Amino acid sequence: MNTAEQLVPVLAAGGPGLARGLRLAEARLAEVADAHGEVLADYAGGTLKAGGKRLRPLLVFLCAGRTDPDERVVAAAAAVELLHMATLVHDDVLDRASLRRGYPTVFATAGRDAAIATGDLLFSRAFAELAATGSAPAVQALSAASTALARGELMQRDDAWSPAVTAARYRERCALKTGSLFAASSRLGAELGGRGSAHADALATFGDRIGVAFQILDDVLDVSGPVEETGKHRGTDLLDGTVTLPLIVARERDSELRELDLRTAATTPREAEALCDRIAASGALEQSRGEALEIVASAKRDLAEIDLESWQREALDLVADGVVARYA
Amino acid sequence: MNTAEQLVPVLAAGGPGLARGLRLAEARLAEVADAHGEVLADYAGGTLKAGGKRLRPLLVFLCAGRTDPDERVVAAAAAVELLHMATLVHDDVLDRASLRRGYPTVFATAGRDAAIATGDLLFSRAFAELAATGSAPAVQALSAASTALARGELMQRDDAWSPAVTAARYRERCALKTGSLFAASSRLGAELGGRGSAHADALATFGDRIGVAFQILDDVLDVSGPVEETGKHRGTDLLDGTVTLPLIVARERDSELRELDLRTAATTPREAEALCDRIAASGALEQSRGEALEIVASAKRDLAEIDLESWQREALDLVADGVVARYA
Repeated sequence: MNTAEQLVPVLAAGGPGLARGLRLAEARLAEVADAHGEVLADYAGGTLKAGGKRLRPLLVFLCAGRTDPDERVVAAAAAVELLHMATLVHDDVLDRASLRRGYPTVFATAGRDAAIATGDLLFSRAFAELAATGSAPAVQALSAASTALARGELMQRDDAWSPAVTAARYRERCALKTGSLFAASSRLGAELGGRGSAHADALATFGDRIGVAFQILDDVLDVSGPVEETGKHRGTDLLDGTVTLPLIVARERDSELRELDLRTAATTPREAEALCDRIAASGALEQSRGEALEIVASAKRDLAEIDLESWQREALDLVADGVVARYA
Repeated sequence: MNTAEQLVPVLAAGGPGLARGLRLAEARLAEVADAHGEVLADYAGGTLKAGGKRLRPLLVFLCAGRTDPDERVVAAAAAVELLHMATLVHDDVLDRASLRRGYPTVFATAGRDAAIATGDLLFSRAFAELAATGSAPAVQALSAASTALARGELMQRDDAWSPAVTAARYRERCALKTGSLFAASSRLGAELGGRGSAHADALATFGDRIGVAFQILDDVLDVSGPVEETGKHRGTDLLDGTVTLPLIVARERDSELRELDLRTAATTPREAEALCDRIAASGALEQSRGEALEIVASAKRDLAEIDLESWQREALDLVADGVVARYA
């Protein structure tokens, strides 16, 4: 789901209402970036321009299920993307990242301090957007996701370079770091669509699974490359100590890998690439990818049981396929 | 308002209801710190234990005006303090501060990365607390304040070492950085107290003024010391480039100060102390203090016109006096 072409069939399924909603959300994001002084426009404008897949707003619209989305749905779509952007801006500080999607990060342009404050501002605006909907459950859903994101980040830092990270703990982290906001996006859409809480729960579960699969596949891509597609060196996770599923699986399969001290195993990009090759040779990438595909398949199976309009089901199915297609 | 003794008359005016409310808010803060995993308990627990004046929760209770505060008022009181704590945790990263109120900061204990994530978590919990009240205007008030805090921080970084910072721009920054959350605390209390929006506006204006005066006096204290009272060296603002009212006024009064290059004028604690002496010699501290006292006096005059219970007025008057007393 990272090219415009992949979005085409989803937009076709969603019809003019979906396209209009996405345009309105985009306009809202641009307004927020402009409405808070030159400094934010400069910094957040860059983050905005860098674009991105807008997967989370898409889930809001698709789960809201109206062909012509109302203002509250647009606000929720903008809110989830603002929260996502806030975490990206802070993540780039943590990772000392200079580029994101080919654009300079706020961290690179304006420095660490401005990036922390810019992230805080985007955070605040996410809640402001949602508060304007007047829906308390919506604000609760977003704050629950926001808490989960921060917990996931803390867990990741806490587990850095740890040989004790199990696959179960890794999955929990994926659910916190990525599943939570996919789930909240789906829940927000469903709740604003007004189809009741069981319906919203079912769609939130779908969102959570798609998010976890997305994260696993992203972590596979960090090991497999190719660099031309990811836009970054292979093995960045190894260099910053993030223990992901491919490494966990590879260590189960390869006793020499198991004995490596993770902190010293790869300290240069060249060493990281070599370790990536070693992980790939163990068959860990296929196993990890297989796990992600199985999660997507089960999300799609359960989706078939949810009472949805046919265009919604079709579009959500395409989103699920898009998550997988990126890594085919 | 920084010693327990100064709180005694306020508590006396507020009666057992106020004391109970503050205890409940404190318990809620402790619960939040405990409810999000060991990591947060360790980090945020320290921030919590470090205590603080709890001025913002106090304003919530006093402006709510009920002798026995309900759950929603307690949640709002916890929310404003959580947001305040979030900004402190991030500020400590920006300032590379190792101690706050005599306790090690999250930044010092756990490092920059964990501190950014801990701040994000506290942020999220602030909104979660408030969302639980079901009041959309309450969430809007908090997100407006949260946005203002981040804008104030960005403005401060942007204006660092700038000789072009006017007194008016400085006051705008004080309103963003400090007035906004004092105002939001008062507004939240008033709104949950259910006395209508004109009443809430009037109390928010009171809160804003007290906050701005508090910030000006804090900035005076950074120049004047004494170190025994502030717990930090004099001139920390000069060292990190924060241009405050005493410096602005001193440069208007002393042409040699006006010609200094701010970036090189004080680069060591010893040079900062010498510059503090020079600022003090210009009479800038008296003028700055005078401005703050005039703001407090006008806040108190307008308070007399607001329709309040006599215990509320008495307690809010004491809070205003407490802000001043700290610097007497």
